[in-house]
Amino acid sequence: MSDRRFYRLHAPLEAGRLAMLAGAKLVHGDDAHVLSDVAALADAGPHTVCFVRDGALLSAVTALDAGLYFCPPELVDPLLARGAGALAVHTRPDAAFYAAAAALVDPLESQGEHKLTAPDSTLEDGVQVGDGASIGPGAYISEGTVIGPGAVIGAGCVIGKNCAIGANAVVHFTVMGDRVDIRPGAVLGEAGLGVIGGADGLMDVPHFGIIRLGDGVRIGANSAIDRAVFGETVIGARSKVDNLVQIAHNVQIGTDCVLASLCGVAGSAVLGNGVLMGGRAGVADHVQIGDNARIGAAAAVMKNVPQGETWGGHPARPMRQYMREQVALKKLAQRGGGSHDPGE
Amino acid sequence: MSDRRFYRLHAPLEAGRLAMLAGAKLVHGDDAHVLSDVAALADAGPHTVCFVRDGALLSAVTALDAGLYFCPPELVDPLLARGAGALAVHTRPDAAFYAAAAALVDPLESQGEHKLTAPDSTLEDGVQVGDGASIGPGAYISEGTVIGPGAVIGAGCVIGKNCAIGANAVVHFTVMGDRVDIRPGAVLGEAGLGVIGGADGLMDVPHFGIIRLGDGVRIGANSAIDRAVFGETVIGARSKVDNLVQIAHNVQIGTDCVLASLCGVAGSAVLGNGVLMGGRAGVADHVQIGDNARIGAAAAVMKNVPQGETWGGHPARPMRQYMREQVALKKLAQRGGGSHDPGE
Amino acid sequence: MSDRRFYRLHAPLEAGRLAMLAGAKLVHGDDAHVLSDVAALADAGPHTVCFVRDGALLSAVTALDAGLYFCPPELVDPLLARGAGALAVHTRPDAAFYAAAAALVDPLESQGEHKLTAPDSTLEDGVQVGDGASIGPGAYISEGTVIGPGAVIGAGCVIGKNCAIGANAVVHFTVMGDRVDIRPGAVLGEAGLGVIGGADGLMDVPHFGIIRLGDGVRIGANSAIDRAVFGETVIGARSKVDNLVQIAHNVQIGTDCVLASLCGVAGSAVLGNGVLMGGRAGVADHVQIGDNARIGAAAAVMKNVPQGETWGGHPARPMRQYMREQVALKKLAQRGGGSHDPGE
Repeated sequence: MSDRRFYRLHAPLEAGRLAMLAGAKLVHGDDAHVLSDVAALADAGPHTVCFVRDGALLSAVTALDAGLYFCPPELVDPLLARGAGALAVHTRPDAAFYAAAAALVDPLESQGEHKLTAPDSTLEDGVQVGDGASIGPGAYISEGTVIGPGAVIGAGCVIGKNCAIGANAVVHFTVMGDRVDIRPGAVLGEAGLGVIGGADGLMDVPHFGIIRLGDGVRIGANSAIDRAVFGETVIGARSKVDNLVQIAHNVQIGTDCVLASLCGVAGSAVLGNGVLMGGRAGVADHVQIGDNARIGAAAAVMKNVPQGETWGGHPARPMRQYMREQVALKKLAQRGGGSHDPGE
Repeated sequence: MSDRRFYRLHAPLEAGRLAMLAGAKLVHGDDAHVLSDVAALADAGPHTVCFVRDGALLSAVTALDAGLYFCPPELVDPLLARGAGALAVHTRPDAAFYAAAAALVDPLESQGEHKLTAPDSTLEDGVQVGDGASIGPGAYISEGTVIGPGAVIGAGCVIGKNCAIGANAVVHFTVMGDRVDIRPGAVLGEAGLGVIGGADGLMDVPHFGIIRLGDGVRIGANSAIDRAVFGETVIGARSKVDNLVQIAHNVQIGTDCVLASLCGVAGSAVLGNGVLMGGRAGVADHVQIGDNARIGAAAAVMKNVPQGETWGGHPARPMRQYMREQVALKKLAQRGGGSHDPGE
Repeated sequence: MSDRRFYRLHAPLEAGRLAMLAGAKLVHGDDAHVLSDVAALADAGPHTVCFVRDGALLSAVTALDAGLYFCPPELVDPLLARGAGALAVHTRPDAAFYAAAAALVDPLESQGEHKLTAPDSTLEDGVQVGDGASIGPGAYISEGTVIGPGAVIGAGCVIGKNCAIGANAVVHFTVMGDRVDIRPGAVLGEAGLGVIGGADGLMDVPHFGIIRLGDGVRIGANSAIDRAVFGETVIGARSKVDNLVQIAHNVQIGTDCVLASLCGVAGSAVLGNGVLMGGRAGVADHVQIGDNARIGAAAAVMKNVPQGETWGGHPARPMRQYMREQVALKKLAQRGGGSHDPGE
């Protein structure tokens, strides 16, 4: 059950209506049974909705007493055999469940009245601005967007519809699409690290570019994205960036990528569409990663990765090669550290 | 000596009284000698307190002119032989010193008057709220807690007694015990990175859980801790998390753990009690780390670590195995890159 | 061309004047031709200034229609042969270009009127303070410094001339020189991670020191720098620290160092002058790195690095050794995992 201190319930909904809203089919149970909340399988109750993604989870379920289960077609019979009372079938039961959840429950949000907004900025109808947030001259905030307490929107920024800018996030030099979600503490639009050695020591490279974010992009808490030296740093539609990620100046990231926490993408690197980076992985500057490539956790990518390949290790190489090498190294050490050479 | 611009001195104390406060025994020197400040060994003066942890430091001490030294029993004679004037003995001289220090000196704190507090939130007596801090509806802040300037406490949060919430920190969806120390810029309670692939590309997984922090937990500057999808992300009592650390949704961390800077703990990983993680180490999702295990700096833990073991490397393995493998690899390369095979 | 939403143009300047301002020599073209903006080579127009750093870029240039090119002496003839209309010669054309750029274009900055300043702090003439920024008692802010919206300057801090403190940055316990650039979200001056084990579990080590930053230092967005336990954490003049970098208590960093994103420098480590650290590299506590040493991306430095050397790998070793070992490992695995020993 969701915690009443943090989440708000909407009006309850009937099972048939809820399945329909989620694009699923109610194959068992009472159409008129009322559902009011969501829960994990272990916390299910008579008026909560759950989901069972695959057979592996099935064996972990002992008490089947949720008011409604979303499940894939192949689990209908096993769930009925275990006594489930109501089943809604969808090939992606998790996605259907989340759609149903959105109709039932919402997080509470902290909003304030105190506004610090430049007179020549534009806020469309329905924009909410939190306590102490600051909006710079010429900024344009589109309808339905929520600016968190203490957030800073710099001069000239363009924020699309239904975006969320988290508390104390800082957004400068950025143009973004709709439904972009910037989490608290993220910093977008600073000049990147670039140095020029001169007679008087190091100087910073000034930056003249911007950042462009596609629709549905998500940037995690305390992540940092630098604007381009010239032109644009780009993150394509629906790409999801976790917390504490660094994306340097002039990086180009395609659509539907996922970058896990503590990743770093160095200057001018290019990621195609659908690229996955595991946690704490890095990509060197100017390196190119092909579409749908996968980079393992903590990998250090120093050269181009062809599309669809999976690489890992330090420096990164094809994952199968990396695995073989680790096995070979283990065997070598077991044999006595390679010291079987009597000449050593 | 502590810097008067940043630290405030309390009233001076006599040596006998200070030793007693720290649970130590004054074995040499004048009970009534007055101490007023703390210092490192190299900066000692006649009214400052120092400590000598072990014999290794002893040899580095040249001028023994502090007003009072905390030392272990085995260093009493060597310090007297070198001319120390006053000694307080404790088996943990560092801990005794810090207790004494707390009685002598305090950091100055910046506090303001400007408050943005939701009308239905509760602040017990003695709560201090900094400039521009924002406290959401239904939040409960217990006595003695200090909220820094610009900090954001979200709806429904419960903050225990004598906690410190740093400047510009953001705390949502969190219930915490007493004496919890959240440093500036930390972000707690966001939804973690979870994606669902659908017909229209990636979608974010919504989150319905919270975070629970035990008594005495410390979260470093700019760290990020995500709330659970369902249930709770948990950090046990007295666990200490450094700066720029990522703790993902549904992670369970026991008591008295230490996580150094830039560590990442991925979703649903479990750390027992007393676990140590070196800097820039990572733990993959769902991995379990046993009680009192130690993870080396920059290690990438991909599978379970039994209790009490020390692991390192990428991917992490038992530290002794990792060391042997590194030696074997070095020898192999010295032999000519393994290319002694004439067939190559 | 720079984006009018984010950058402001100064008055246009004539080519001869601009070359002179940049310390370069106009060797071809009309002294009186007017320049108004900067651009990358690919976006050049008749009134924009560009630069060509070396011959490698020359071949990438197809349309030579910028109003003025900065170039090195050896590229004068090749550029004239390709039809360039105006050339200003400088041995460091990038540095000359950036000097010219500063005379032509500036980023717009978001500034507010709302101030929260302690009565006994000092702001010299020309200090700008953003919306909701908080300045603690006894702080001293020198002329020409800009404090961003929501930034927090703690009690007693000393900020030099012409510094920039980014939005929502938090600066405590810090004394800094002139022209220091602290980016948004950076946190300076917290107590570092230090724990004492006691009868009641872990306790935090209190800190009595400060941070000192030299002239021209840059600290990236969301980086964290801890103050010393005693004495000073020091970063020397002109050293450049990228985003999301951790610098622990009592670290000593020389002048003109560059630390790329997600680096970590553990407690009491010492970096000489001119040290380079690649992205996601780490240095263990108390380790010493000599002048002008280079640490590869993602390296884990566990022991001292002599001056001028380049190290890489995990644990870090001389880069050539690391490379040889990776080659040897690859060959070993290709030979069959080292399993040519019939006894296995």
